[in-house]
Amino acid sequence: MIRDRLTKLRGKMAEKGIDFYMVPTSDFHGSEYVDDFFKVREYFSGFTGSNGTLVVGCDMAGLWTDGRYFIQAEKELEGTGITLFRMLEEGVPDIPDFLKQNMKKGQTLGFDGRTVSCRDGKYLEKKLEGLDIRFSYEEDVAGELWQERPSLPKHEVMILPEEISGQSMEVKLSAVRNRIKAAGANYLMLSKLDDLMWLMNIRGSDVACNPVALSYGFITPEELYFFIQLEEVTDDFREYAVRNHIVIKDYKEVAEFLDGYDYEGKVLIDEGNINYALYKVLSERADCARASNPTEALKAIKNKTELSRMEEVYLEDSAVLIKFIYWLKKNVGKEKITEISAAEYLDRLRRKIDGFIDLSFPTISAYKENAAMMHYEALPESTKEIKAEGMLLVDSGGQYLGGTTDVTRTIVLGEISPEEKKHFTKVAVGMLQLSDARFLYGCTGRNLDILARQPLWDIGIDYKCGTGHGIGYILNVHEGPQSIRWRFAPGMKEAVIEEGMVISNEPGVYIEGSHGIRTENVIVANKGEKNANGQFMYFDTLTFVPIDMEAIDTAYMQPIDVERLNRYHAEVYRRTEKYLTEEERAWLKEATEPIEIQR
Amino acid sequence: MIRDRLTKLRGKMAEKGIDFYMVPTSDFHGSEYVDDFFKVREYFSGFTGSNGTLVVGCDMAGLWTDGRYFIQAEKELEGTGITLFRMLEEGVPDIPDFLKQNMKKGQTLGFDGRTVSCRDGKYLEKKLEGLDIRFSYEEDVAGELWQERPSLPKHEVMILPEEISGQSMEVKLSAVRNRIKAAGANYLMLSKLDDLMWLMNIRGSDVACNPVALSYGFITPEELYFFIQLEEVTDDFREYAVRNHIVIKDYKEVAEFLDGYDYEGKVLIDEGNINYALYKVLSERADCARASNPTEALKAIKNKTELSRMEEVYLEDSAVLIKFIYWLKKNVGKEKITEISAAEYLDRLRRKIDGFIDLSFPTISAYKENAAMMHYEALPESTKEIKAEGMLLVDSGGQYLGGTTDVTRTIVLGEISPEEKKHFTKVAVGMLQLSDARFLYGCTGRNLDILARQPLWDIGIDYKCGTGHGIGYILNVHEGPQSIRWRFAPGMKEAVIEEGMVISNEPGVYIEGSHGIRTENVIVANKGEKNANGQFMYFDTLTFVPIDMEAIDTAYMQPIDVERLNRYHAEVYRRTEKYLTEEERAWLKEATEPIEIQR
Repeated sequence: MIRDRLTKLRGKMAEKGIDFYMVPTSDFHGSEYVDDFFKVREYFSGFTGSNGTLVVGCDMAGLWTDGRYFIQAEKELEGTGITLFRMLEEGVPDIPDFLKQNMKKGQTLGFDGRTVSCRDGKYLEKKLEGLDIRFSYEEDVAGELWQERPSLPKHEVMILPEEISGQSMEVKLSAVRNRIKAAGANYLMLSKLDDLMWLMNIRGSDVACNPVALSYGFITPEELYFFIQLEEVTDDFREYAVRNHIVIKDYKEVAEFLDGYDYEGKVLIDEGNINYALYKVLSERADCARASNPTEALKAIKNKTELSRMEEVYLEDSAVLIKFIYWLKKNVGKEKITEISAAEYLDRLRRKIDGFIDLSFPTISAYKENAAMMHYEALPESTKEIKAEGMLLVDSGGQYLGGTTDVTRTIVLGEISPEEKKHFTKVAVGMLQLSDARFLYGCTGRNLDILARQPLWDIGIDYKCGTGHGIGYILNVHEGPQSIRWRFAPGMKEAVIEEGMVISNEPGVYIEGSHGIRTENVIVANKGEKNANGQFMYFDTLTFVPIDMEAIDTAYMQPIDVERLNRYHAEVYRRTEKYLTEEERAWLKEATEPIEIQR
Repeated sequence: MIRDRLTKLRGKMAEKGIDFYMVPTSDFHGSEYVDDFFKVREYFSGFTGSNGTLVVGCDMAGLWTDGRYFIQAEKELEGTGITLFRMLEEGVPDIPDFLKQNMKKGQTLGFDGRTVSCRDGKYLEKKLEGLDIRFSYEEDVAGELWQERPSLPKHEVMILPEEISGQSMEVKLSAVRNRIKAAGANYLMLSKLDDLMWLMNIRGSDVACNPVALSYGFITPEELYFFIQLEEVTDDFREYAVRNHIVIKDYKEVAEFLDGYDYEGKVLIDEGNINYALYKVLSERADCARASNPTEALKAIKNKTELSRMEEVYLEDSAVLIKFIYWLKKNVGKEKITEISAAEYLDRLRRKIDGFIDLSFPTISAYKENAAMMHYEALPESTKEIKAEGMLLVDSGGQYLGGTTDVTRTIVLGEISPEEKKHFTKVAVGMLQLSDARFLYGCTGRNLDILARQPLWDIGIDYKCGTGHGIGYILNVHEGPQSIRWRFAPGMKEAVIEEGMVISNEPGVYIEGSHGIRTENVIVANKGEKNANGQFMYFDTLTFVPIDMEAIDTAYMQPIDVERLNRYHAEVYRRTEKYLTEEERAWLKEATEPIEIQR
């Protein structure tokens, strides 16, 4: 079947003069998750994993995917004739390198330019520079061959009332227009879905876990042209559009519109957040100013309404996690629980929370050594059974009308080693030390990262990722521009931490083949004392879930660390007990009992 | 007298068509200290402070200086007709702003272009852009009017043998040439004196506290043209020059030489370290590549010989400070001691150390509230008498054949307040925490700064400067590119901390009108464990002087802080006792006695 499909694709390629055709896994907006409509790569390769790119030549086909999927991909690609390229393994070229090595001068590379980011497209251009390669990116050559292709997701958009958004679209749009002007431009092209949702105070459900509608926005000094599938437009929204000078246009027509528009002045584009096809139209037709979307920085600073709703929903979400931990500890070893069934149990609890919309990402449930893989995904055929020993790492979150949550706890289920306790304690100490930071305004995540990492660096351990990322409000669980990390790759944004920014705080230890630990709270930056030395800042915590005392070894704690842990646990109990049953409350009381430091 | 001199200067200005003439306080290399020859500003203004710039117009004259000198300058300028401009005071324009406001279109600004840095000159150009101002910078108009002007300092250069330098000039020059090539250039213009001394393994004594010779270097693929006053050239150096392909040229002829040179390829220049006059010659005559001097980064990484000699000399220097503290504590209140006489006592002790060359900077001796001024300079007419109460801050260092030292201790002389103890303890805790850091290779000073600053930020205090600077080897006490600070001004260098870099670690508290505390050790970066997580780094300490226990309040310490202090004090005693008398040793024993944390 796959072979037939590839043959058809090659036929079409020959017809169009395309020598290599590339099928990534992406929608038109670089979303973290893609709908079935966008699974063209799966259709032509049979590989069902979430990450992978297919490259088809006239006499070869290759699939690139990452370590999570090597075993699964091998199985699924069997008999298809497609070669598996194991990403990041020694000697395995990445796609640009592969193309550079295998394409001949003057050949044509095809791909649907809407599914490739501007950055990746430009990188390909640069990589293949000397080869005089033609890029054919204006057609969805592969997708059009897909018989019985699902249609684009079409879900009606929802308008957030001001008691949920906290700020009218009018006010937001005027702030954005000021920034467009300040950047010396007249227009802004927005294809970052969460930015657009934030700006317009609307939400959609076209992308799993991200409450966004597939759409584009083009902001002029007077109008906002909003490109959306017309089936998603409700009467309410039409009315809302009139009130807010929104001109509704068909999602399909964006490229044509931008191609035909009569520009007077510069268009601000964010090269990190636009697809290659639209970038090409704009850069050919208009004078472009390159800058981050001004919406991103504004969206990151949560307003009072957003913050107070998040506070509330984080408590409910924390309570659900407490219920889950209690259930797990009580039942492990008594009934059959797997990584997946545990996650499902937790997801069910979360769904009961008032205002639940979706998960904010697929729950990570990783037992024992599986937790050492930072992006572990339990698969039905290989999910581990959870026994009364070792630890389970659960990283999860929900989308609610009150906000977006994200929390990780590593839960002790029985015997664990002294080393595991040491690592667990060091992680907790670092996490609490960062949460407790007092710092001068002007600090970025680079200044603060070491507060979380130092206890691990002290023992020669590192986690190979940042310490924290921004979190949306009823939006993506990962958002910028803020980030807590000690190193920034060239071109990476480094934003000052502003009052109202919501950030995760998630140090961890990942020991391959042995165990993985992560403890993640979500914190909010606040203004503290202002004096002659400047404006001091501090963090409030949103997450209130106990840190497993069974894995704490006070030998690795200073009195201040114990004091921080006790202070946190007292708050956990005080704030969440009202959501719990008698039984759960009794358990929580014990789990949050203050401890003394070992002398 | 001053009025007469100004009249003469104005006459010359009129003759040359100069409307405003500017006299800064600088030699031709931007050195931290200037010889009498360069005190043209003092000659024309009567103001003797170390920092100040005179601006003379046809009907005005103004002197700009900083807060340290306001009182002194007022007195010294009396009757001269020169207006005092109090730098950084509200409403006081800086010089570029003043000129912008007061110069008329088409006028001429004069200054000796050798005494103005390229950066400042270019900034002036930019600031005065719209006014069509001519810059007359090729003559020392004011200096030439100075009768009985001292001659340029002329001291013979000294060649460092390899047992002191640790690396031959040949090896260094070849490394530098590789970097010139890598930067796409053929030549390097060096006017940074310490870089040139380092490269050539020579030292001079033309600048107070900096063992450097006034000179320039121009490196071609084959030669090093070395511009120096011929009186400084010894027979030994002539021989050394022949062996090392150094072409000796007269210091005075550098501009002429560069103007007449036949360039084949680019000249690397460091705009941060070249004077405006030479910059103009080069930028007009040659194709310039702008980059930091490659010598700076190479010089910052001390070789094994340098490090082992520094270790030794830091012990002797530490012992001298211990002797001083012992003497001060014993005699305070019994004999008359002033800030200046205390400094002189310490300086005398230092001079006795084998290989002593000079102080590395004028000793700062600041009593009580004077210590709150970070750059306090005790002046003979106002020096404070030291009594058996409060604290004395002493920041000092020496130049020895074994290296350059820098150390600060704040010494308790009697009753101090609980607040002073709190601040003192927090400073010590931060200093020791930074010294004890373990961190991954790749960190810069920005990642680490918070380790020293956090204890102060925790109580809403900040010191408005960096935490640490690089330190030379028998060279300048301040050198780059490394630096420990939480913020970098735009354009400021941010260097990864490399093995072998020597850095100061000097947090402090400065409470205006009350007290000032600084505790400064010098530390060396080292490679530690290398594992799958990367290359870990740590610091060794060079400075071994007790931290005054009379100002330590263990209520502000965690057990780890006490442990660090005790560990440090044990080393102080172990390493320095052999340099001390019986009496001093007995005192040191007590001063470094381990303490217990208060429960």
